[in-house]
Amino acid sequence: MLYIIGIGPGSNQKMTIEANNILQKVDVIVGYKTYLKLIKDIISQNQITYTSGMREEKDRIEKAIEYTAAGNKTAIISSGDAGVYGMAGPVMELITKKNYQIDVEVIPGVPAANAAAAVLGAPLMHDYVTISLSDILTPWEQIKKRIKAAAQADFVTVLYNPRSSRRKKQLNFTKEYFLDKRSPETPVGIVRNISREGQEKLLTTLEKLPLEKVDMLSTVIIGNSQSYISEGKLITPRGYNL
Amino acid sequence: MLYIIGIGPGSNQKMTIEANNILQKVDVIVGYKTYLKLIKDIISQNQITYTSGMREEKDRIEKAIEYTAAGNKTAIISSGDAGVYGMAGPVMELITKKNYQIDVEVIPGVPAANAAAAVLGAPLMHDYVTISLSDILTPWEQIKKRIKAAAQADFVTVLYNPRSSRRKKQLNFTKEYFLDKRSPETPVGIVRNISREGQEKLLTTLEKLPLEKVDMLSTVIIGNSQSYISEGKLITPRGYNL
Repeated sequence: MLYIIGIGPGSNQKMTIEANNILQKVDVIVGYKTYLKLIKDIISQNQITYTSGMREEKDRIEKAIEYTAAGNKTAIISSGDAGVYGMAGPVMELITKKNYQIDVEVIPGVPAANAAAAVLGAPLMHDYVTISLSDILTPWEQIKKRIKAAAQADFVTVLYNPRSSRRKKQLNFTKEYFLDKRSPETPVGIVRNISREGQEKLLTTLEKLPLEKVDMLSTVIIGNSQSYISEGKLITPRGYNL
Repeated sequence: MLYIIGIGPGSNQKMTIEANNILQKVDVIVGYKTYLKLIKDIISQNQITYTSGMREEKDRIEKAIEYTAAGNKTAIISSGDAGVYGMAGPVMELITKKNYQIDVEVIPGVPAANAAAAVLGAPLMHDYVTISLSDILTPWEQIKKRIKAAAQADFVTVLYNPRSSRRKKQLNFTKEYFLDKRSPETPVGIVRNISREGQEKLLTTLEKLPLEKVDMLSTVIIGNSQSYISEGKLITPRGYNL
């Protein structure tokens, strides 16, 4: 059996009991090195670990399949939820494509978006979208279309992979487009290193959104037209008569 | 301190370690009765519990605030993630409105959408929206606008509260509108009683989506234009070169 496990955003406290139990019982754990480091206190000396670098997903998936096919109980891990821009998709894609006879099970975890939301207050309380601004795997035209739709239909909007040292225009565009559709006072929350050492949060507005402070370790949440900030919390109301 | 806790979709196995630890140490646990039942194995005889029925959120929040103000460590619970159509928002709204001096902390959980996705395969692997079809707290015109935007911009679309015995037109409209924008073969997954006794899953297509089988215990996930079903899994590819 190959378990595809979401380990949650960072701290092992935010991992599910199920994920924790499975990680302790498997023979092999495969993961990107930063994620293996996050769970180092769970891994025992009897377990085999395999790691490789960023963008080497295919290598890790093939290794995990190899270990599983050889009879090992194997886990491949993602941070957050493995089903959100994580390993669940590519593992299943490859198994399907190559027609491997392997049982897989996805163990869901707390996604980065929801962990960031909890740090900020309650911003996702109404309909929301998650959009990855990375154009490595998705054409920019498609990302742009989704940014526009999210802004126009007043969705709370979560941005994954918002900005890197080489890729800046996507967040600039998002800010400008939203400013065209929503008030400049629309609250925006940024969480960096969610649930990890050095966690930082910033509450700001669309107009003041400091682009240069946003990087690949940041999750950005743009409120909808009803969102507000009160006592240091970003809150999106849902219409309860309170 | 008032903890607003997402207990995950159902089984305590899918609760975070943090949520479990806090639930064991608090003096008072407040929650809708179905959710208190889900965590009955965690609650000890020394703890006070307070429950009330559906749509009595305000009553529960006031009770939780009362207990907290009286010096009790208190938890108020939601299923899934408390920040997604859960208690995090209304608790903070009420505290803000009444200007209560109470510390709150949101403990995130695995949302129903992500737990349903794990049961189905890997449908949320690309940009997705969550939309609640309930028109109790949100005008239907606003919901409709968001359904249209989601369909037009090719988002994977998760429907919460999709259909009840008294409310059927919202899901009918969604199906018809999506059929107008996406192929009738677009895969759709439905999970009922996620991670609870009697969990059921159904893989189907937009065209064949059986409206009458969908109820308030169901979560519906509509794939994007690239999603496919293979070996009983609903998969949305993300563009990896595999």
